Amino acid sequence: MEQPTASMLVIGDELLSGRTQDANMHHLANKLTEIGINLSEARFIRDDAAVIVSNIVELSTKFDYLFTSGGIGPTHDDITTDCVAEAFGRQVSVRSDAFNILKKYYDGKGIELNEARLRMARIPEKADLIENIISGAPGYIIENVYVMAGVPRIFQSMLQTVLPNLKKGTPTLSISIKLYKGEGDIALELEQIVKAFSKLTFGSYPFNENGIHGTNIVIRGKDKKLMIKAEEKVRTIA
Amino acid sequence: MEQPTASMLVIGDELLSGRTQDANMHHLANKLTEIGINLSEARFIRDDAAVIVSNIVELSTKFDYLFTSGGIGPTHDDITTDCVAEAFGRQVSVRSDAFNILKKYYDGKGIELNEARLRMARIPEKADLIENIISGAPGYIIENVYVMAGVPRIFQSMLQTVLPNLKKGTPTLSISIKLYKGEGDIALELEQIVKAFSKLTFGSYPFNENGIHGTNIVIRGKDKKLMIKAEEKVRTIA
Repeated sequence: MEQPTASMLVIGDELLSGRTQDANMHHLANKLTEIGINLSEARFIRDDAAVIVSNIVELSTKFDYLFTSGGIGPTHDDITTDCVAEAFGRQVSVRSDAFNILKKYYDGKGIELNEARLRMARIPEKADLIENIISGAPGYIIENVYVMAGVPRIFQSMLQTVLPNLKKGTPTLSISIKLYKGEGDIALELEQIVKAFSKLTFGSYPFNENGIHGTNIVIRGKDKKLMIKAEEKVRTIA
Repeated sequence: MEQPTASMLVIGDELLSGRTQDANMHHLANKLTEIGINLSEARFIRDDAAVIVSNIVELSTKFDYLFTSGGIGPTHDDITTDCVAEAFGRQVSVRSDAFNILKKYYDGKGIELNEARLRMARIPEKADLIENIISGAPGYIIENVYVMAGVPRIFQSMLQTVLPNLKKGTPTLSISIKLYKGEGDIALELEQIVKAFSKLTFGSYPFNENGIHGTNIVIRGKDKKLMIKAEEKVRTIA
């Protein structure tokens, strides 16, 4: 039943000020769940170097994987790379492999690879680049940390690139059962079922559809037969 | 310039498994920003008692306020209240004030206040109740921790109730300037402006509208006159 664990660090003032609504965490959550990796925790933090560094250290130590989004662009507020390097005690410089990727990308567009854009070729030593098919500037992997862009299209594309190489777990299966009864009406019977099926986990999520209250029960586990038995029990709640 | 700081703890497996997309953090971020409270960090964690307890202790110690969402319903997976009580070393019991609220609410609907629903009257000692005009069951305040429901309508309503009593800061003002140039084209000039206006903060956010790339520059601060001067400078980037 052991699954690799993962965490996410969403970096950027704009998310905590309410200016922008994050889409990357939900996307990552779904993709990891599909391949049996357990997203255990996600943190949203501000553009504060000390906070970024300490979170990278903590989360990369606690969990098998850490995925970051945001702060690797060309402007003054993009400080993630320096923080990642500091967290791992590595040097950062314009690396020729990243330089060549950017040069080719901008040459192809007839755009100058100026000093600002060159910042995006600054990569910590011994990090592996993650291809960016959308806008050139690569992400990178340093030990168990995956440093990726904040722009959702680019984040999603980079994630797609790295997913096949992650250590997978047995995907958790789930069965969702819609009951047209409130949580308060089913809770006691549900609790009995939860106790009877200790190898499965049960979530209970109230909903309201056009004024009609109900509860979605989600059964999660790895043993399909057992889950179907539990599903039958849940359906008897009436 | 000192603003009260806040943190958020979003509790629930369903968010980290990708089943549900959170809406409460974005809402809280906007409401706190409006009244000059700085949402410094938000964490999404699973329904794991030890993890919930340690996060409540850490975040309520680090920041002026902690807002939690989720895990206060009537079912077996609603464990937030026991965790909050443990974090503060308080007893939990069915309290008569909460009982009376639930009794009145369910009597009014002709619904039985059964054992499961009664769980929602379990409140830590010496916590102040937060009214729930949507579905009866109250949230509560314990020291600087605001324990609220996960259902967005209820979370928003509870937040509305508590907002007027929070310690406010001077709201951060912001000016957003849309430039039809890529981040890489404006970064160097922008950096000069950032250095010249050290009392303000500048965010740079790339956008793509129908294939046209541009950058939104957001200037934040408290000194409107200074911000307008900075805006004029940013508009000269061309």
